[in-house]
Formats: sequence, C-alpha cells, structure tokens
Amino acid sequence: MWGFELRRDIEIPLKRQIYLEIKEQIVAGRLRAGEALPSTRQLAEELKVSRNTVNEAFDMLLAEGFVVSRQGSPTRIADGAAVHTEKKEMPRQREHQGVSFLVDFRTGQPDLRSFPKYLWQQISIKASREMPDDMLGYTGPQGLPSLRYEISSWLYRSKGLAVDPLDIFITAGATHALSVIAHLLYQPEQAIIVEDPTNIEMLQSFINKGYDVKRVPVDECGLITDKLPSNSGPIYVTPSHQFPLGGILPADRRAALIRFARGQGSYIVEDDYDSEFRYDGDPVSPLYAMDPNRVIYIGTFSKVLFPALRIGYVILPHCLQKRWRYLRTHTDVQNPPFEQAALAEFLRTRKFDRHIRNMRKLYRERRQALMTALKRSFGDRWHPWGDAAGLHLAIEFENMRFDSSFKDKCRSNRIRITPVEYHAIAKGFHANKLLFGYGHLEPQQIEEGVAALKAFLLAQGYMPSARQVPL
Amino acid sequence: MWGFELRRDIEIPLKRQIYLEIKEQIVAGRLRAGEALPSTRQLAEELKVSRNTVNEAFDMLLAEGFVVSRQGSPTRIADGAAVHTEKKEMPRQREHQGVSFLVDFRTGQPDLRSFPKYLWQQISIKASREMPDDMLGYTGPQGLPSLRYEISSWLYRSKGLAVDPLDIFITAGATHALSVIAHLLYQPEQAIIVEDPTNIEMLQSFINKGYDVKRVPVDECGLITDKLPSNSGPIYVTPSHQFPLGGILPADRRAALIRFARGQGSYIVEDDYDSEFRYDGDPVSPLYAMDPNRVIYIGTFSKVLFPALRIGYVILPHCLQKRWRYLRTHTDVQNPPFEQAALAEFLRTRKFDRHIRNMRKLYRERRQALMTALKRSFGDRWHPWGDAAGLHLAIEFENMRFDSSFKDKCRSNRIRITPVEYHAIAKGFHANKLLFGYGHLEPQQIEEGVAALKAFLLAQGYMPSARQVPL
Repeated sequence: MWGFELRRDIEIPLKRQIYLEIKEQIVAGRLRAGEALPSTRQLAEELKVSRNTVNEAFDMLLAEGFVVSRQGSPTRIADGAAVHTEKKEMPRQREHQGVSFLVDFRTGQPDLRSFPKYLWQQISIKASREMPDDMLGYTGPQGLPSLRYEISSWLYRSKGLAVDPLDIFITAGATHALSVIAHLLYQPEQAIIVEDPTNIEMLQSFINKGYDVKRVPVDECGLITDKLPSNSGPIYVTPSHQFPLGGILPADRRAALIRFARGQGSYIVEDDYDSEFRYDGDPVSPLYAMDPNRVIYIGTFSKVLFPALRIGYVILPHCLQKRWRYLRTHTDVQNPPFEQAALAEFLRTRKFDRHIRNMRKLYRERRQALMTALKRSFGDRWHPWGDAAGLHLAIEFENMRFDSSFKDKCRSNRIRITPVEYHAIAKGFHANKLLFGYGHLEPQQIEEGVAALKAFLLAQGYMPSARQVPL
Repeated sequence: MWGFELRRDIEIPLKRQIYLEIKEQIVAGRLRAGEALPSTRQLAEELKVSRNTVNEAFDMLLAEGFVVSRQGSPTRIADGAAVHTEKKEMPRQREHQGVSFLVDFRTGQPDLRSFPKYLWQQISIKASREMPDDMLGYTGPQGLPSLRYEISSWLYRSKGLAVDPLDIFITAGATHALSVIAHLLYQPEQAIIVEDPTNIEMLQSFINKGYDVKRVPVDECGLITDKLPSNSGPIYVTPSHQFPLGGILPADRRAALIRFARGQGSYIVEDDYDSEFRYDGDPVSPLYAMDPNRVIYIGTFSKVLFPALRIGYVILPHCLQKRWRYLRTHTDVQNPPFEQAALAEFLRTRKFDRHIRNMRKLYRERRQALMTALKRSFGDRWHPWGDAAGLHLAIEFENMRFDSSFKDKCRSNRIRITPVEYHAIAKGFHANKLLFGYGHLEPQQIEEGVAALKAFLLAQGYMPSARQVPL
C-alpha cells in the first residue's frame, strides 16, 4: 500500500518525492486523520532509500503540520488537512500566436534593425562592470542620478530647456508614466480633458482609474482651445505632434491652454512621444517651457531607441514630487539600474545624439517613400495631415469612409492598418482618414504595402474601381 | 535692441538660440502682438551668423505660430502668444541623502556582496548577444517564454510543483505583482483580509486601490483561520513564513483557509517572499499546490538574487489571465527583456540552484551569529519566533515594550531596527518584539549591532540596567 514509485531520473530529490507523495494522499483524503504512518525504517526498506531520507521527509510533514508525532507513538496523520480536490478549470490555451501580417502599417514602431545593437551592448557591459554593489539593492523611486543628469543635459542641448535633474523622475516608459500620473492627479468625480481623436490606448490609464472623460475636438493645428470645458480636471495633450493627426499646437493656443489651466487650478499633462523626429526643422519646444509649475512633461526613449528598453521620464512640478515617490514605491518600486546606467552612458558619450540624427534621416526618406507610393496608387485623391514629424502619417482619402470595423476586416486579410476612427471618442468626424506607420518599414515594403492596400480597398468596395471613375 | 548675445561655447545650435531668445521675449510679452521682426538679413548681420541660420530660426517660430508671415510684408509677432510668467514654486530641495546607519537591522535585504556579479555579467552579455532584434520591440505583457519555462522547471525541481509556463506571468517584483493584483481583484465596497501583523508596506497597494482592510490575528503558526470574517473579499497571506512573525501555516489551517475561500468565492493571494531560505529542512510547499483555481501565487527574485533585478512572477488561475494582460498592457506594458533573458539562462545552467545553496549556508551562519549575539547581550530574557527561515528574525523581549515611535527614536541614533508594532494594524499585541534583518550583515556587524542596541536600550530606559535587575 505504501509502495509508490520513486523516480531517480528527475531532479526532485528523493526526500521531497516522499514528502510530496504522502502530502498529496493526505490532502486528497486517501490517508485519513489519525491513521499511522509506517515507521521510517519500514518505509526506507520498502522504497530502497536511506532511513535518513525518510526522516527528512517526515520532518517536513511535521513542520507543516500534515502529521503529528508524540514520544513513543507512531507518527499519525493530522486532523483537518484534507481538502476535496476541485478539477483544474478549463483546458489550457496555447501560447498566443500573433497574426503574421503581409502589410504592417502599425503606428509607434521604430526601426529595430537600425539600432546600433553592438554599440549598445558594449556600453551596457561597461556600465554593468562599473556599477557599484549597492546599486544591486533598492536605489529609490526617482531613478539613477547619473541618468537624470544626462537627460537634463540632453534637454538643454537639444531643446534649450533648462531642467533641474531633481525635477526629473525616471519611469518604465510613457504608458507607465501616464498610469502613475492618473493616480497622482486623481480626485473623485473629476474628469480628464482629452483631445479627440487621442491615443485611445493611453486613455485607458485614466479610464481604469475612474476618471470621466471630456473630449475637446482637434483640427489641423491640434486642440481647439476655444472649446475647453470649464469645471474639469487635468488636461492630457500632445502639443508637439498631435496624436494621431499630427498638428503642432500654435503659440496662441498654447498660451490659451496655460491660462485655462491656471484659471481652474489644474495640471496639463504633456505627452511628447516622438518630437525628436521632425523633418522640416528643429524639434518643437515643449509646452512645459511656458509654465513649469503647471505642466507635467512626459518623455520616452521607446521611440527614439527601442520599446523594450522600458525607460521614460516625467518632469514634475515640485508639489507633486513627494506623492509621486510614495506612489512609485508602492506600485513597482523602481526601474532596474542596468538599462538606466547604459542609457546614461549612451547620452553622456553623445552616441545618442548621433543615433537620433541617423534615424531622422532614415525616417525622412521613408516618409518620402510613403508619399511617393500614395501618389502612385491613389493619384491626388488623398492629402496628408499635420506636421512632417514622427513615425506615422494621417492620410485623408477623398470619398472613402473607414469605420471601426475596418481594422478587423483588414486584419483578417493580414493587413495591419488603423483608421483614425479607432482613436476617436466621438465617432464620425474623421472616418475618411487612415494612419500609416512607416518608421519600421523599408521603402520597398512601403510601396508594396500601399499597392496591396489599394487592391484590398478596391476588392472590398471601399473605393470606386478605375472603370467606374477613371483616375 | 535685438542685440542679444549668442553663445558659441555651448551645445545649443545658434539657430535654436535665436529661436529661443525671440520666443522667450514673445511669451514674456516683451515683444508685442503685431510688432515686426527685423529682416533676416539685418538680424544675420547684427548677430554675425549666416542668413540661413536666421531663416531656420524664423521657420521654427512660424511653424509653432509665434510669428505670422504674409507675402511681401515683414514677419510679425502673432496674437495671443504671451503668458504672464509665474515664479517657479519653492526652492529646490537637495538630492535626498539617506541616513548613514551605524547599526542596520533592516528586513528583506539580501547580501549583495555575495552575489556572483561577474558570472551574472557574463550571462547577461551572452543573453544580450543572442537576443533576436524583434525582442527590442514590444514582446507582450506576460514575459519571455524562455524565462517562464525555466521558472516552471525550477518550481518543479525545487518544490515538486507542476506549473504550466502559460500560467506564469512575469512581474517587476512582488510589490508590483501585488499592485496589479489589487486592481485585478477589486470590487467596490470589498475588503481585503490580511494577517495582523502583516507587511504594512505591501498592504499599501490594497489601501491605495480603495479596499477596506479586515485584520485576522496571527499566532506562532500564522493566520488563525478560526477568526476569518465572513462576507469579505480576497485574503492576503504569507503561509510559508509569516511576515513578520515567521510561522509556517499548518496543514489543518491551510485546508480551512482553502475551504473558506471556496465557500465565499474569493481568491487567496499567497506571497512566498523568502521560502527558498529554510535552514532546518527543505522549503515549505506553497499553498498554491492545494488549489490552483483559488490561489494566486507570488514569487520574487529580489531576495534570492538582488532587489534591483526587478523580476518576480505570479501564477494565475486561468479565468484571471485575460484581465491581467489588459491591466499590465495599460500600466507599465512589460518588463525589459535583458534581465529576463539573463535570468532564464542563470536558471537553465543551474547557476541559480548553486547560488541558492551557497546563500542558504551563509544566511544560516548569520542567523546563528545573531542568536549567539543575543544570548551574549540579553542572556535568556528573549526568545525567537517562527520557523528557522528567511532573512530576518522576530525576537520577543521579556519586560520590554517598543511602540511605534521606537523606530524613529532609533533612527535619530543611527540605529535601523523595526518593532513588530510598526507592521501591526491593531496596536498593542506585539509591542515586546523587534525584527532583526541579518541576511546582509557580516557576523561581526551582527555582534556589534546587538551590543550597540543593548547600550541604546539601557541608555533610553527600555530595559532595566544590570544594577537594578541582575541578569
């Protein structure tokens, strides 16, 4: 009856196998309360192991209260340790398999092949070698001082922005920043004011926290500040390159937005997700520069380096900093130090600046390739929205409409493309626009992708065929 | 009047200096709406730069709407771009300087000097070299499959626990896991049931999310299951090594806890924060093994490797997995892949197992050193609580009381030690106990620390001096 099999071909020690077997029988109720276990000598013989091995297994059972032992009596099964076994719920699903897209115009995806991976490795190794032991411990919720110093220096030389490193807080990317900010600024019954359309994925951080959402429409210049609703909470904006339509918020609206926030005592959350890549001139200056007391600035390295880095930062007004530290300490504690130290070195040695210059050139060419391909496939029945910047382009098509179902319909044809409607809160205003992410695509992929999209649009009746309306 | 100084000794390009200077004057209202800018030729001469440089600065101002330009007219300042400048709030605080402790018995701190840093570096470098390009992009909220496979394999060989890698979700440590779980299980008006005392820092995740807290007292065996309150929500427990008192939850209470959770349809959150280090036998088996449908298991590598790694994991019942993926995607997206790949390799090559063995030996010696030092300083007027495990020890002292203010009083004497009262919800039941974290201390530091603590207790009147009550 005790003769269960021990396996000598697996890594579980014999004593643990004995312990697990007996424990399982107790929990399942096959060994009943009060029942005596065999003596260790007897079981050792039966299982062909040393008596010591059985002793260790019994000690474990004793320590965890599965058995009780009294001087001079045999070891017995303890009371109340059985639990009726429930069936493991539902069959397992298999590891999630992504669709393999033939055409992939997803937005926000930098070119990973062009990242100087070898150089990054060298810098990582150096940073890791030079890292003092105590940085393996908890180093605080604000992030490494060296990285904050280098970010401050970069903001100064690239944007002329003077920021004290003490006001910079490292995050695990922009989404993470927004999720902490949603907690930081939360007041019950308060709404968040957002651009419409906006990045609908990012908006989830506020919705999950329980904010109401008040939409303000967007035109080719970004947020229409005349339509800001009063008695609301914080304002989430993308003034350098409106997502997804691409406008640069002009100076008068910037001033109006700041006056509005001051008037109602609320904060502006400025998401500067891809302003490094501007093709007709220098990066746009952050709104932050106009009022550091009122604007929370979010920067990220996901787009300029690579998403898996998981490093971004916020610049915080002073009176929010203590609460930020508390929140970070009690959610995810801190970033790991290795990537932070490597990034600090990448910035310090100006390899970062060179990478940005290279990528700006590359992305500009790809943007041009996209415009050329669109011209070839769609003639002049389309026009681009927004400033020449970033990794995607919003295109308005004449006499076409792409509703929310369009994305899924494309997906089932292995085409990945997002209509602006997907990011719209009030539907129907931007149904004639599609978003083309081009940063991660070679010119030839762009050209083939646009041609494939045209064929799909024709086949599905989205655009009139050439025979009906000659181009 | 236009003659501002350009600086040729800084990294900000001249065109950006010109743009910033003019912009600042517009925002501050020193250049007024409608006023004409000088011609680019005139300004170029005055500033001794090329006309092209000035053109580029003007283009920036134009793109951002600070100036307007009409064919044939001079460039003029736009309307409404001025904002009254507010003073930057409050003087800066200096970079936070931690107290330098003479005696540091903090809990949960592994020995960082003993970590095989060089070996880890070699493995990190290998993992990074072998990493495919697409892992620099977004790789999903669940964590690298290779790491989940290796964790599953480790759980099997070390605890005999059979877990499908598909049920394992990588987190940024245990605190992060708990903060996602707090969202995952939240229902309005619902309470979280916790052990009292419990880890008061970890509890913040639930409090921040808005849970009520219902306490259940703890004895030397952990949670007293007879006192579980009905009609509550999830239960947060540390059954393998109760924090902070150290008990192992016995089999009958484990069974009672599972029946209780089933009865009220709630989940058990099992925090297995340091069970690898058990000195009198094998690690205790997780509660999870008794009901994988009902228990969420939290594991962490912060204590067994090093805190800055920021990797932990949860094992989730199937029906919570979809919501987990959504929550993770919209809070901090994912872990960086580098540490994950390195850890997978560290586990695969069994360097991990060897490290655990080495550390268990080291910590056992330190625990013994602590007991010896206590004996030397306090005779037999103390006794240890709980199982011989982990990185800290709860000590009960005869005729002494340490209230909540004790921690700060010690701190101002450069002694770091936590009374159990600090972690208590209902105060007064454990006022005679202190927590000694010993994992990070050399035996000599432990001995000196205990002696210094005794001197402090005597000087402050916490313990009667030897003259009053001879030992």
